[in-house]
Amino acid sequence: MKKWIPIASGLLAGFVAATISFADFSKSTNTEVASSSTKSAAEKVYVPFGEKDDYYLFASGGHSGQMFIYGVPSMRHIRTVPVFSPDSATGYGFDEHSKEMMGGYTWGDLHHPAFSETNGDYDGKYMFATDVGNSRAAVMNLETFTVKDIIEVPNTSGPHCAAFVTENTEYMFLPTRFAVPLGSEYKSLDEYSEQYRGVMSAVTFDQNSEKLNIAYQVALPPWSYDLSDAGKKISKDWAVLTTYNTEEATTNLEINASQADRDFIVLFNWKELEQMVKDGKYEDVGGQKMIFPEKQKGVIYLIPVAKSPHGVDVTPDGKHFIASGKLAPAMTVFSFEKAFEAVEKGDFAGERNGIPIIKYESVMEREVNPENALGPLHTQFDDKGMAYTTMFISSEVVKWDPNTGETLDRVPVQYSPGHSVAAEGDTVAPDGQWLIALNKIAKDSYLSVGPSHPESMQLIDISGKMKVIQSSPVNPEPHYAQMIKADKIKTIEVYPKNEKNELATYKQEDAKIVRNRNKVDVYGIAMRSKFIFDAKAKRPDVIEVNEGDEVTIHLTNIDFDEDITHGFAINSYDLNIEVQPGQTNTIKFTADKAGTFPLYCTNFCSALHQEMTGYFLVKPKN
Amino acid sequence: MKKWIPIASGLLAGFVAATISFADFSKSTNTEVASSSTKSAAEKVYVPFGEKDDYYLFASGGHSGQMFIYGVPSMRHIRTVPVFSPDSATGYGFDEHSKEMMGGYTWGDLHHPAFSETNGDYDGKYMFATDVGNSRAAVMNLETFTVKDIIEVPNTSGPHCAAFVTENTEYMFLPTRFAVPLGSEYKSLDEYSEQYRGVMSAVTFDQNSEKLNIAYQVALPPWSYDLSDAGKKISKDWAVLTTYNTEEATTNLEINASQADRDFIVLFNWKELEQMVKDGKYEDVGGQKMIFPEKQKGVIYLIPVAKSPHGVDVTPDGKHFIASGKLAPAMTVFSFEKAFEAVEKGDFAGERNGIPIIKYESVMEREVNPENALGPLHTQFDDKGMAYTTMFISSEVVKWDPNTGETLDRVPVQYSPGHSVAAEGDTVAPDGQWLIALNKIAKDSYLSVGPSHPESMQLIDISGKMKVIQSSPVNPEPHYAQMIKADKIKTIEVYPKNEKNELATYKQEDAKIVRNRNKVDVYGIAMRSKFIFDAKAKRPDVIEVNEGDEVTIHLTNIDFDEDITHGFAINSYDLNIEVQPGQTNTIKFTADKAGTFPLYCTNFCSALHQEMTGYFLVKPKN
Repeated sequence: MKKWIPIASGLLAGFVAATISFADFSKSTNTEVASSSTKSAAEKVYVPFGEKDDYYLFASGGHSGQMFIYGVPSMRHIRTVPVFSPDSATGYGFDEHSKEMMGGYTWGDLHHPAFSETNGDYDGKYMFATDVGNSRAAVMNLETFTVKDIIEVPNTSGPHCAAFVTENTEYMFLPTRFAVPLGSEYKSLDEYSEQYRGVMSAVTFDQNSEKLNIAYQVALPPWSYDLSDAGKKISKDWAVLTTYNTEEATTNLEINASQADRDFIVLFNWKELEQMVKDGKYEDVGGQKMIFPEKQKGVIYLIPVAKSPHGVDVTPDGKHFIASGKLAPAMTVFSFEKAFEAVEKGDFAGERNGIPIIKYESVMEREVNPENALGPLHTQFDDKGMAYTTMFISSEVVKWDPNTGETLDRVPVQYSPGHSVAAEGDTVAPDGQWLIALNKIAKDSYLSVGPSHPESMQLIDISGKMKVIQSSPVNPEPHYAQMIKADKIKTIEVYPKNEKNELATYKQEDAKIVRNRNKVDVYGIAMRSKFIFDAKAKRPDVIEVNEGDEVTIHLTNIDFDEDITHGFAINSYDLNIEVQPGQTNTIKFTADKAGTFPLYCTNFCSALHQEMTGYFLVKPKN
Repeated sequence: MKKWIPIASGLLAGFVAATISFADFSKSTNTEVASSSTKSAAEKVYVPFGEKDDYYLFASGGHSGQMFIYGVPSMRHIRTVPVFSPDSATGYGFDEHSKEMMGGYTWGDLHHPAFSETNGDYDGKYMFATDVGNSRAAVMNLETFTVKDIIEVPNTSGPHCAAFVTENTEYMFLPTRFAVPLGSEYKSLDEYSEQYRGVMSAVTFDQNSEKLNIAYQVALPPWSYDLSDAGKKISKDWAVLTTYNTEEATTNLEINASQADRDFIVLFNWKELEQMVKDGKYEDVGGQKMIFPEKQKGVIYLIPVAKSPHGVDVTPDGKHFIASGKLAPAMTVFSFEKAFEAVEKGDFAGERNGIPIIKYESVMEREVNPENALGPLHTQFDDKGMAYTTMFISSEVVKWDPNTGETLDRVPVQYSPGHSVAAEGDTVAPDGQWLIALNKIAKDSYLSVGPSHPESMQLIDISGKMKVIQSSPVNPEPHYAQMIKADKIKTIEVYPKNEKNELATYKQEDAKIVRNRNKVDVYGIAMRSKFIFDAKAKRPDVIEVNEGDEVTIHLTNIDFDEDITHGFAINSYDLNIEVQPGQTNTIKFTADKAGTFPLYCTNFCSALHQEMTGYFLVKPKN
């Protein structure tokens, strides 16, 4: 066994926090434009007009609450897709559908994105993500790049250790970063070990209804669950999670959660958890099926790991998983087969919180300790099965062979990489070619925008010797990203006509305003370059109501023409929605201000976009 | 006189709207990588790590409500600065200061940005912008890239024809796109011509208090005011605006606002308007000083222009202004000197709405009609005084000489450019070198993200023959942008300590929680890698309150270290703020949910960021 982090963790932690040191490979020319006979770095990342990027990058937007879509290799930011926070650019959080999905929340902290998978490979259909801030999960449809469902996850707080999906998207597991009493009840922190729990939720997704559902939950010990991965192939029924604060500290975690030399990896068999639920081996907690592992044994195990680990990553062949302490110098390769054998034999070193501990020595395949590398956080893979691990503290990416432990290559990144993402690098079939380091600190890499700088992503060509070939500033804050081959995503061009939708109005002559006492329903049309709310009126683009009326506007964009999106805003009424080509959207509000308010199309649509206006007239009560 | 747009405008308008046609210069190789002996396009836009961009680009974010900051020539998106819409990524709209500035609104439609100027040149100190959606104006400080003030502009609706500043930032003028009755009162559209007005507001900015203020307003005719520019040098006391819908149509503007062959440019002398206010020649309208031009003559004039103009742009020497109908083929160069002469002589062709009309022939210097060019929208300038006009309908940028009318060069852009921006291209001293076309339609330029595509900006090298050298997708929706030399902007590295700020807590031992009946004030500290709310408590990172308490948290980031920003969120409480290095920020809310809620740092800050947590405990009422 090699180095564990030395004692005096508090001191070390303080040191690391205060003086982030950066690797300096002065002989390296990795960030320079290569003068090789092949393409220069500039040419490699350049995608001229008429060509397109090879990959989509879906990067979590962290506390922006959104998902950022980039093209690779150009690293151009193509679109921000709103998920957990409202976005007036697309009317998200304003129209009835998205408003309802958001459940009254006004922001989210979007952490790790996960594509839907078929046979362990991205299928390009859906993207899942979780909200650490307000404990939610969401699913995005990749035909339209829009969110279809968001659920609040009860009994949990901060599903950071997510989302990861099983090989055929049977489940998405959401273990939490924070422990709380079940149901978030008020309980003293003095009772932390007895009363608090870190809960893992097993979420299913129905592609027909496009709805998420919580199948069951597991009441894990009151630790912090950080990152996770589902097994693949031989390990496909299993999944692994990292934990920290197994000290169960309740204050000053900076020091108190770094006391024990080791934390744990949680290993569990989700097929057997599923069976437990079928067998009724759960308790009802606030309407959820909760499995208590100390009562229902034989499915969940602990494996010691270097203290405060971050990533745990399953190799493409499904045989191994790799984890490491985030302040440690070494990575550990663990063997699923050895773990299964230990489980089979009941070869345990006691229990923690009622969960059997598999001996480190029994499952450890090898420890890998590249010289001077420090702070291994997260590992991705290439098409040869080689591993790429981000080194947070020494600010570099190390390429190594999980089968031999040999260090193959290393490249400095600027600075403090959290995750990295390789092209399809967490699937059963990684693509190689590109790796992106998601750096937490940009320092002076870009033009300054004040005391707070952007984060930074750096594109690394991994086709030969690793080279950083592009540095890209990014809005706060990508925690993880996934990169998918462009041809796997099949978007639709327009929303198809749906004659069954009673809220849709496709014919100009059908546009109408229906009044029922103080309720006004507008069945309107947006088209280049006008609004029609009442086809029969003297001024079809005017909506007149009485002060206090409840107004509902159902607006259909009848331009069935790609990219011809219309917006709809009423001046001073603080509302804006979008209707994409063919789409019908509804907005509801109270006409609480009397007066004359212009309305207009907010999304540029044609040469006469500027003329696409009308009026909202609100007759005063008196 | 050359071609005006032919009759049958409605038909034409419909045609244009339905079939946007694109220029095809098949012999051109403008968008290809140049194989010249000098740098390739790829190399020109490539900024390797260790180097920085030469220019900042400030692009309006349209109905996103925000400002997008890019680097040029790399076209990398560096930062989104929230202005009119909340932004959880930076806690904007959540902390007390920004929440108050936003005035209860949850979105804005940010149109034309304008840098503060000294002697007609950008001084790099401030950026102004307006909100067409909810009729506001904002100012951003460029030391910190944060908004300092937002004002609502009464009596107006949609200040689209803004912002533009006078030569020494004496005023920012905000004419409106929509006409409304004064005070937005309810009035029938049948009384449009009599009762509705387009109001222009003259806004001043005090650099000491960093506050905006409405100096006076002008009740212009009920037309739409589209774009504007302040005079320079010899014309520095003057400004020009474009109008459309001088037909005073009240419905279906697509057709009805395109009837008259000509609309107008409004020309006014702001020094004399200022004098009028001093002389008391105004009326009080809702607390504002309102000048009625039909009563107070001799300061405002009309000049006929091709119908439905968009941009009006003053040449760097201040001698001319250029405008054109947006469906027209020709640009018109107007002479300020000739206009002054006409005013002097009283050489008018009657009046409209009580405002004298200067004869087109008296002020027109020349009409410029590049072959097959259609839809001139907006003009920028280079260091030689040459003009670059975006052609919306023929999708190209045309370079021409305003002194001779000669067409010098042209380049297709993809597609439908609205504005363009040249390096400092609307100042008295443009830089040349770069021009960016802000294209409204990207079509299939980028990887598809569904039925609605990104907008597109294209970087054009104008140092020799124009070449499009980079295409960049962009979030909706840049309406205008300004490009400033990087060394003009001087950001601060941290917020300086302010011992006079009673809400700030700089010493760890001073962190405290003060209770006054049901009001709880927390004077807390955020630092790598912990929160301290109550230095003397057993658990300094815990806040415990009673259900229903009014909680105010004043949080100071005592890491006086560039880029070490902390966030603060309470799980499920739907709140998140940011404290940049040295900054103190306040958030106020009611503890309306009893229970146990983890709190944590949302903005990555150090190796132990993940440990920077605590608890918010809310004791239930019963």
